[in-house]
Amino acid sequence: MPGREFFRTRTVAEALASLPTTPPTAAEPVGLDDALGRVPAVPVVSPHALPGFARSTVDGFAVQAADTYGASDGLPAYLEVMGAVAMGTAPDVGVRTGGAASMPTGGVLPDGADAVVMVEHTQQTMAGTVEVVRPAAPGDGVVRADEDVAAGDEIAPAGRPLRATDLGMLAAAGVTWVDVHARPLVGIVSTGDEVVPPETPELAPGQVRDATTAALAGLVRQAGGVPRSFGIVADDGSALEDVLRTAVAACDVVVVSAGSSVGARDETARAVERLGPPGIVCHGVAVRPGKPTLLAQVGQVPVVGLPGNPLSALVVFRLLGVPLVLRVGGCTRPPPEPTTGARLARQVASQAGRRDVVQVRLEPDGGVTVAHPVLGASALLSVLTSADGCVVVPEDATGLDEGADVTVTLYR
Amino acid sequence: MPGREFFRTRTVAEALASLPTTPPTAAEPVGLDDALGRVPAVPVVSPHALPGFARSTVDGFAVQAADTYGASDGLPAYLEVMGAVAMGTAPDVGVRTGGAASMPTGGVLPDGADAVVMVEHTQQTMAGTVEVVRPAAPGDGVVRADEDVAAGDEIAPAGRPLRATDLGMLAAAGVTWVDVHARPLVGIVSTGDEVVPPETPELAPGQVRDATTAALAGLVRQAGGVPRSFGIVADDGSALEDVLRTAVAACDVVVVSAGSSVGARDETARAVERLGPPGIVCHGVAVRPGKPTLLAQVGQVPVVGLPGNPLSALVVFRLLGVPLVLRVGGCTRPPPEPTTGARLARQVASQAGRRDVVQVRLEPDGGVTVAHPVLGASALLSVLTSADGCVVVPEDATGLDEGADVTVTLYR
Repeated sequence: MPGREFFRTRTVAEALASLPTTPPTAAEPVGLDDALGRVPAVPVVSPHALPGFARSTVDGFAVQAADTYGASDGLPAYLEVMGAVAMGTAPDVGVRTGGAASMPTGGVLPDGADAVVMVEHTQQTMAGTVEVVRPAAPGDGVVRADEDVAAGDEIAPAGRPLRATDLGMLAAAGVTWVDVHARPLVGIVSTGDEVVPPETPELAPGQVRDATTAALAGLVRQAGGVPRSFGIVADDGSALEDVLRTAVAACDVVVVSAGSSVGARDETARAVERLGPPGIVCHGVAVRPGKPTLLAQVGQVPVVGLPGNPLSALVVFRLLGVPLVLRVGGCTRPPPEPTTGARLARQVASQAGRRDVVQVRLEPDGGVTVAHPVLGASALLSVLTSADGCVVVPEDATGLDEGADVTVTLYR
Repeated sequence: MPGREFFRTRTVAEALASLPTTPPTAAEPVGLDDALGRVPAVPVVSPHALPGFARSTVDGFAVQAADTYGASDGLPAYLEVMGAVAMGTAPDVGVRTGGAASMPTGGVLPDGADAVVMVEHTQQTMAGTVEVVRPAAPGDGVVRADEDVAAGDEIAPAGRPLRATDLGMLAAAGVTWVDVHARPLVGIVSTGDEVVPPETPELAPGQVRDATTAALAGLVRQAGGVPRSFGIVADDGSALEDVLRTAVAACDVVVVSAGSSVGARDETARAVERLGPPGIVCHGVAVRPGKPTLLAQVGQVPVVGLPGNPLSALVVFRLLGVPLVLRVGGCTRPPPEPTTGARLARQVASQAGRRDVVQVRLEPDGGVTVAHPVLGASALLSVLTSADGCVVVPEDATGLDEGADVTVTLYR
């Protein structure tokens, strides 16, 4: 029977690389109202040029630029006002040499005109005539019909979650449905004889309410996935195997919080191993907290076995689970995480070859932000909730000095 | 009739401060599954102590610490194994002087014991006896019944959106419903004779599809609000007034994209002024792009009149609209925005007393991130979608030098 002894500890990067690559979720069409943060499955191209017509960018007068050359306050160009362009319709006026047409911002440049002089550079002292007091070059005050976007241009890339501004661009181009990757369905299995549902009103001695499922569900949502809880399974290998089999059949990714005792963790590993090939690819990741992490694949479905205590489970899920959910969801360009620079309040020891994740509380101190490591057993949820973010000590470092400049990844 | 001449230009901070404060939205209960990112209306307190019982943090043996004093590999303490504690149940064994009970991680500390020795510090060579080879102090290997949280402790603050880790803490405390502020309903009114709905298949000359509503809706959602479109209104003061009146009656905040021409902007201002007291508090904000911004309040409802072009409208909505949506939604501690440090690729001119928002594209350059200002008319959507973020030139600066270290707020 495979045991932990067959697997050497991997770095986070090695662990992720050791999983066979699986295809991302299928594409599904969504309307613009539901498209924020969704990940296009193919690049979105514009069916039209934008703005689609030569368009004025100022209030003023459409002219032939050559008529204004040399114009100044002392020597204005006198042009005949041939009409007015109205918003949202084709101009019913053309501009010939010596002529001009009044223009609103956003109006269609009339035939014959090649520039728009802003109203601030004109005077109207006689009816029917406008005096232009600054010269205009061709193209001044105008955007070309395809200056924003040419027909066929890519207006949103595949693999990057759609931003608010992307939605504006898609709307402008008339693209009101987008093919995006389906949100990955992430099965969450909780284990432990002592674990009971959060809604349990009174606990028997030794029982604890399940904290991990709710927190993992939040992280899954933030990564663009849909969490689905498969409930709490007692520390019983065959019951766990049954639930995991159901979860793997239904989901794109499966996460199981292994029991916190060594025996319960081994039980979880054996249950995962029995699910089928390719099986466990890594048991033990060089990260603190979180070493007893298990990574497996069953068919196309990655399975992550998390350590038993909530702090370790969430640290590991951020490092391994979130990248997997993004990968399976087709997200090749994840949105940036908020970070801040800070000064480390005290020394943090680490071990070369291991990634340490240190929870920190931030406090301003005379213009500087100071990051205070949050102390306490990893079984304490308050360590997690009192932290404003975390500092990562990378594999190639052996700790961080007191006063070091560190980058804090902020929780949101 | 009030016109723009009655209002001097305000800074962004002055503009926000000039709006009368309104009460945040009412509280509503939500279940944990829907609570991510929601804003508690009152501090959440734990009804129970956590973990609720003295709990082992290691696999090992519950002991009386005094029995282990002086223990070493050469001189172990020999203790009688009096039984085993099982997970999730009250121990059926007590620990007397000279005794020990085997313990799983997470088990209940039995009566009489005051520490747990980890299994790595023990040997079992004779049945019924455990040899302890390291001394333990009282409390070692144990968390106290209220060490994580005492009954009545605050476990999530009011005013800060709930994080994934908060949900874990709430679940552990048995708090499965939370009173949160209702999501602010944000009415969006688009104006312009030339503007047509995004789904319009073919445009007549001079028409453009509405880009602003979709982009604003995205920003509203990111700020925790619910966008509600009130459609597109032609540049007609009385039609606009009617729609605005409906929107103000139905919503917590109203945003109107004013027409882009000077005449259309004035029409919007007059329509807003007629809605009722206290009325317009600010017309013109010292920000570029976005100066012709209008801020008003009608009863308890803030009304923001945005500039006509999408770039300016979105810049202003990020500066003024997002803080208002957060404020109305009871969010006093907004989540951090992602930022990055970068080197400015070229000089940016600004004007003292004005806040400039410069769209930038980021490119790596030999270990440094370089921020390239994105050039182009503010009527171009591609300026927005090609930007990775923005750099703010604050009011007290007169520009930024080429090569300056800048902080880029990243779009997501």
